[in-house]
Amino acid sequence: MPKTSFKGNAMPPSPIRKLVPFAEKAKKEGKKIYHLNIGQPDIETPETMLNAIHHFSPKVIEYSHSAGIESYRKKLTSYYSKNNIHIDYTDIMITTGGSEAIEIALMSCLNEGDEIIVPEPFYANYNGFSAMADVIIKPIRSYIENGFALPPIEEFEKLMTHKTKAILICNPSNPTGYLYSREELETLRTIVRKKDVWLLSDEVYREFCYEGKEFTSVMQLEGIEQNVVLLDSISKRYSACGARIGALISRNKELMNVALKFAQARLSPPTFGQVAGEAAIDTPDSYFEKVRNEYAARRNFVVEALNNMEGVFCPKPSGAFYCIARLPIDNSDKFCQWLLEKFSFNNETVMLAPATGFYSQPDLGTNEVRIAYVLNIDSLMKAMKCLDEALKVYPGRTADKMVARMGN
Amino acid sequence: MPKTSFKGNAMPPSPIRKLVPFAEKAKKEGKKIYHLNIGQPDIETPETMLNAIHHFSPKVIEYSHSAGIESYRKKLTSYYSKNNIHIDYTDIMITTGGSEAIEIALMSCLNEGDEIIVPEPFYANYNGFSAMADVIIKPIRSYIENGFALPPIEEFEKLMTHKTKAILICNPSNPTGYLYSREELETLRTIVRKKDVWLLSDEVYREFCYEGKEFTSVMQLEGIEQNVVLLDSISKRYSACGARIGALISRNKELMNVALKFAQARLSPPTFGQVAGEAAIDTPDSYFEKVRNEYAARRNFVVEALNNMEGVFCPKPSGAFYCIARLPIDNSDKFCQWLLEKFSFNNETVMLAPATGFYSQPDLGTNEVRIAYVLNIDSLMKAMKCLDEALKVYPGRTADKMVARMGN
Repeated sequence: MPKTSFKGNAMPPSPIRKLVPFAEKAKKEGKKIYHLNIGQPDIETPETMLNAIHHFSPKVIEYSHSAGIESYRKKLTSYYSKNNIHIDYTDIMITTGGSEAIEIALMSCLNEGDEIIVPEPFYANYNGFSAMADVIIKPIRSYIENGFALPPIEEFEKLMTHKTKAILICNPSNPTGYLYSREELETLRTIVRKKDVWLLSDEVYREFCYEGKEFTSVMQLEGIEQNVVLLDSISKRYSACGARIGALISRNKELMNVALKFAQARLSPPTFGQVAGEAAIDTPDSYFEKVRNEYAARRNFVVEALNNMEGVFCPKPSGAFYCIARLPIDNSDKFCQWLLEKFSFNNETVMLAPATGFYSQPDLGTNEVRIAYVLNIDSLMKAMKCLDEALKVYPGRTADKMVARMGN
Repeated sequence: MPKTSFKGNAMPPSPIRKLVPFAEKAKKEGKKIYHLNIGQPDIETPETMLNAIHHFSPKVIEYSHSAGIESYRKKLTSYYSKNNIHIDYTDIMITTGGSEAIEIALMSCLNEGDEIIVPEPFYANYNGFSAMADVIIKPIRSYIENGFALPPIEEFEKLMTHKTKAILICNPSNPTGYLYSREELETLRTIVRKKDVWLLSDEVYREFCYEGKEFTSVMQLEGIEQNVVLLDSISKRYSACGARIGALISRNKELMNVALKFAQARLSPPTFGQVAGEAAIDTPDSYFEKVRNEYAARRNFVVEALNNMEGVFCPKPSGAFYCIARLPIDNSDKFCQWLLEKFSFNNETVMLAPATGFYSQPDLGTNEVRIAYVLNIDSLMKAMKCLDEALKVYPGRTADKMVARMGN
């Protein structure tokens, strides 16, 4: 039997999906599970997108241009312009989801063995894309105590070597929900300019900023226009994860030319998704207001409920639809599995993502979980009740030690 | 300004798309162009697929399972079973087009620097995928004189080293239209078994076999079940290139587990395309009969027209919708560009793909072009007339030399 590749064997399995077999077993046993483990929103996709699909009129489902349908790219500039991102349509390449934008950006910007600095905890799939591109992630730790703010510039400088070719951020962040301030981004600007590295920014949660806080894009930073690559997706923006439409955006023409060659190899992004995406640009502002209000209410509820549980700490994030909570537990992987395997309250339980999957340094996140508030408030109430009850009876509870540690 | 990657710079641009600027210029000047340069069929997509899209009922466009929608994978087994390919649905992973199936297969089966043997001329994008996977293509030449039949087994053995990890074929072949016989596949089976290498087979043109010739899949070869990987796509089968739905299929469980990790990183294949793909399985056989008859008629017309032109030779292929013709010209790249830039007949011209892009050894294919017969017969008549007239006046015509060479 021939051998599979080293790379394939080294590829990390999805840490979010590894608990799925336990969830399936629990369901088979009749347990109801509240899924707060994955960023699949329950919010309805805008009607305008579904209408466009229902009225798809061509008789042949053709390839599009490798960089995406031209009318879509042109129309997208108006969406970005409304968000104070001023670009030409040739600065936009449509990708198959945000995933492909990350994949192509890494392959286009970095060589084998090059290093990319990523504040952790970070979106777990960055590990997979880095493995695919033979790139090494250098994590720089952010802390729950200050809500996972940008680490100080000195920490970045300490990590930078001649191998460092890029910095990657997610803003607002999955998994922390942290929204970088303009000042923090200006700090990044300084170091990017000084070291002349790439700045990749995953901004797929742009629309989800709360308390009227303003979103700043790396595309607005002056003087580093040739260094900046924006990674985007319509998956979360319009609750359209399955459309698999994203974008790689940069004013750096050389980069765009290189990226296009990777895009040409795979011919074109999905046509149906692009048609839906083009229609989505007509989504009225009222849709986003409603969605933002809904998520803000969920966040308020979840964060308050968590902080009311004994020994639990959860900073209140300003963006995205995730939060990370510190729990009085010995091991988040064990705890999340135990929730599915051993625990139930009124025959219900809750599925969470162990934060260990979002840290690349070992032993971090062992007492943290990520919670995606992608269910309605009624379900969230029941889910939080489950969690509260679970923490009371979990055999690996370490409440006392936790309180002591929090005092440090 | 930061530098783009070595890999990005080494990526080959699409040889098929490089003439596009000349075509655009010609169109702006009012010239009509017959596009025989690209495998975008004009055949209508089955209604059953478009209906499924028009009636897409979920309110949220969700991610699917990373390996594809389970009901689709299950239903696909009946399609394959009808084609004498007997597999379980867990042997199928849905991919984003055939492109992603190739990409993931190469990354899963081969290490950096490993070699893969590919009979040439071959589908140009294999070069791009190999560059992405850091894999080295070892071309093995097939010849127009015998219609691009499988090279003798000795030629394969000569090329095989400790670095050889796979053989990749396309059956029926793009760009040659050659359909491998069962005997040729048995020959491959022998060497695959002896050397215990992977056998990757791109069978996306399976439905297009003419003169009642039977298609044999590598999945039917006995004794190498653990070595075989089938790469498939619905793009050509149902004239649905833009749906971006393909499949990676293997009975090798270890390979499927590795492949799934790459699939998990990019979350899921497109949902709309999968919905259309699942509906497509109900396409009546009469659809394929009609399409096959249409392509067979086009092939008969084109091949005869080509062989009737002075100094032109075109073997009659038994599959796919391409043929390669040898023309009395000095340089196929120059000639195809000249057709767009300098030539017109009744203000019309024809766009062809220079065969140089399908060979990886230099100086091969310089007097060959690939013709995709993806237009109706009326357009093909006009296109062939254009080509005939063009060959009469092309300044780089080398008719006499050609005839002499053909005598060898």
